Amino acid sequence: MIPNAVSGGDGYAALDGQRLAQALALATQAIGLSEPNPRVGCVIADAQGRMVGEGHTQRVGGPHAEVMALRAARAAAGDTALRGGTAWVTLEPCAHHGRTPPCADALIAAGLARVVIAMRDPFPQVAGRGIARLRDAGITVVEAPPDSDLCRQAQDLNIGFFSRIERGRPWVRMKIAGSLDGHTALPDGRSQWITSMEARNDGHAWRRRATAVLTGLGTVLADDPLLDVRALATDVQPWPLVLDSRWQCPPGARLLARADCCIAGLDDAALADDDEARVRREKLRAAGVRLIELPAAGQPTRAHASAAMPHAHHTDRPRPDLGALMRTLAASPVNELHVEAGAMLNGSLLAGGWVDELLIYMAPRWLGEGRGLAALAPDPQALAAQPAWHWEAIDRIGSDVRLRLRRTQP
Amino acid sequence: MIPNAVSGGDGYAALDGQRLAQALALATQAIGLSEPNPRVGCVIADAQGRMVGEGHTQRVGGPHAEVMALRAARAAAGDTALRGGTAWVTLEPCAHHGRTPPCADALIAAGLARVVIAMRDPFPQVAGRGIARLRDAGITVVEAPPDSDLCRQAQDLNIGFFSRIERGRPWVRMKIAGSLDGHTALPDGRSQWITSMEARNDGHAWRRRATAVLTGLGTVLADDPLLDVRALATDVQPWPLVLDSRWQCPPGARLLARADCCIAGLDDAALADDDEARVRREKLRAAGVRLIELPAAGQPTRAHASAAMPHAHHTDRPRPDLGALMRTLAASPVNELHVEAGAMLNGSLLAGGWVDELLIYMAPRWLGEGRGLAALAPDPQALAAQPAWHWEAIDRIGSDVRLRLRRTQP
Repeated sequence: MIPNAVSGGDGYAALDGQRLAQALALATQAIGLSEPNPRVGCVIADAQGRMVGEGHTQRVGGPHAEVMALRAARAAAGDTALRGGTAWVTLEPCAHHGRTPPCADALIAAGLARVVIAMRDPFPQVAGRGIARLRDAGITVVEAPPDSDLCRQAQDLNIGFFSRIERGRPWVRMKIAGSLDGHTALPDGRSQWITSMEARNDGHAWRRRATAVLTGLGTVLADDPLLDVRALATDVQPWPLVLDSRWQCPPGARLLARADCCIAGLDDAALADDDEARVRREKLRAAGVRLIELPAAGQPTRAHASAAMPHAHHTDRPRPDLGALMRTLAASPVNELHVEAGAMLNGSLLAGGWVDELLIYMAPRWLGEGRGLAALAPDPQALAAQPAWHWEAIDRIGSDVRLRLRRTQP
Repeated sequence: MIPNAVSGGDGYAALDGQRLAQALALATQAIGLSEPNPRVGCVIADAQGRMVGEGHTQRVGGPHAEVMALRAARAAAGDTALRGGTAWVTLEPCAHHGRTPPCADALIAAGLARVVIAMRDPFPQVAGRGIARLRDAGITVVEAPPDSDLCRQAQDLNIGFFSRIERGRPWVRMKIAGSLDGHTALPDGRSQWITSMEARNDGHAWRRRATAVLTGLGTVLADDPLLDVRALATDVQPWPLVLDSRWQCPPGARLLARADCCIAGLDDAALADDDEARVRREKLRAAGVRLIELPAAGQPTRAHASAAMPHAHHTDRPRPDLGALMRTLAASPVNELHVEAGAMLNGSLLAGGWVDELLIYMAPRWLGEGRGLAALAPDPQALAAQPAWHWEAIDRIGSDVRLRLRRTQP
């Protein structure tokens, strides 16, 4: 019942913000579904401003948000009702033929007069082309202000997708649960349960956002985790990835029972004369496990083996090149990489500058001298050389506090 | 202009809450001034409901809040204006002769008709007697509901005073500044500056609330701190207290230049044949330093010396009885005890169950393998045996986060 004129013609109006917020809410329903495609939502109004259709991205190969919304609108109001209507979309409509025809063409064919988008697509084959294609067809295209909350939320929802496209690496989110004094477990390794059920469930919701969940061999040996999303429903499970330099993952590990399990370790050149490692690797391959073979890191990372770490790597042995791992994962493609590992792998990832976001669940307890959150080298210059982090959000989750931080871009 | 009738006669009305909130704001002005007397605020209205006077507790021996407010009211409106008026006070008026005459008597003499109080005084010589005295004189006395925010805030403002009266020990608030991974300094001891200027200033505001600031010998040796309130103005400085079992505080320590400095160490019986310690103690006494001599703890505390601690105590040597210290401080009197110490003393206080509140400033940084927040024994039963803590408040202070927790009463 609200005519488009309320929006003030070509400009971006308050109503557009409300409609985009609706579209964004729809887009979040694509979490755990559209992986690794971006999560997009779309709502459509007819020429009289009546809301007639909505939709969000489906599984890979299935319809995109615009097509879903157009289908719903046609079913509800008929073909002709869409002429002169408006679509609000959380991401610039695609203009290229991928697994599905271009969404821009579908919007043009429907006869819409106006398209409002929350943000441009950074994907080279799309960036600006979807908008140009719509405008060439006489459609008015309006963009949300880049500094608006809506634009920022639209970016956050697909932060991994954009990271992969723009930086060639996944968005790496490290989840850690610990005590007030920065320990993840008692010295004997017991950690069940430091944080609350609510915190563990919340952790599963973040796992669900990810394309893959990364852990280390130490965690597999200590906890034999499944790393799947259990606390809430999901259409797509993130696949488990174990960093296991010398292919030591035991054949009985529960993770290996998952068909999508992947192990990353050193390649032939890095393994040198470690024939046993190669034998173990080939057994894993024969068992159907997906493998990622990585070169050795060119120079030692700043992470080191602490005497207190039972699964400490030997610092003089080659370590896998984490940059090569990230490139491989981006090509895989992995959007968001969720890390749930021990102090060793956490330390390597932090020291290498590979972590973009921290998700720290802190329980209101003291543990004393348990295991640390991350093994970082005791570097006298470390205080000054630290990459900067900033608080993204601080929330209470059950009886715990969730600290969310992001790397501050230089 | 608002008649008392608005309050609905004898009952507690919304207006009473507003007036008590005003009185509470006044009471906070007694922080850093009235120590160790409770912080009390009072506002007075005449019979017509006009606000005519306000006041708060002054320095020890000076007027209490009620007397200050009565003086202001008499100066503003004259003696007769107070007849039939109302006073709102954050704490039950005193009924005993201390350093000043009873405040209840002053309110009676002024001819007030009604007194509204935020909470009863737990002090045995006062509890309920102030109210009884007022009622005996025909004054209507109304109390704020015990579960109201106002009553809780009134309790919090004097939490140390009440702790001393009710439990015979100060309210112990431990302040720690650390990194994301629970370290207070780099392994080489450098800690300047992990947290932000805003966090340090906020820490001074908490120091200002305290009667005394406690640290350990290790901190004196490492940092040579002054422990005074510098970031904001205060009328009364909390006095510095060093726990120094064997009287090893160096004569040149900056703290010793403060006339109010106090050192607590072991008594003659506990020192046994350590003649040197006794000599050092007597030199400190001769230099005018206040001393607290403590017996040895009856049984070893759970705190222990970590190999990484350069100033580690020998576990087989007697440790001072922290319970005796707390009793001495309560009698001193100390209301709020502010602790800014290293991992050793923090660990001893935590393990002994002496800490009531935690004030943890967390910087968005990783330090790696620096010093811990508190040295607690690696006890396999520790996870289950932990006393329970709950989050009191979580706030951003500058670029840091301030976590405030309290012991959950069993």
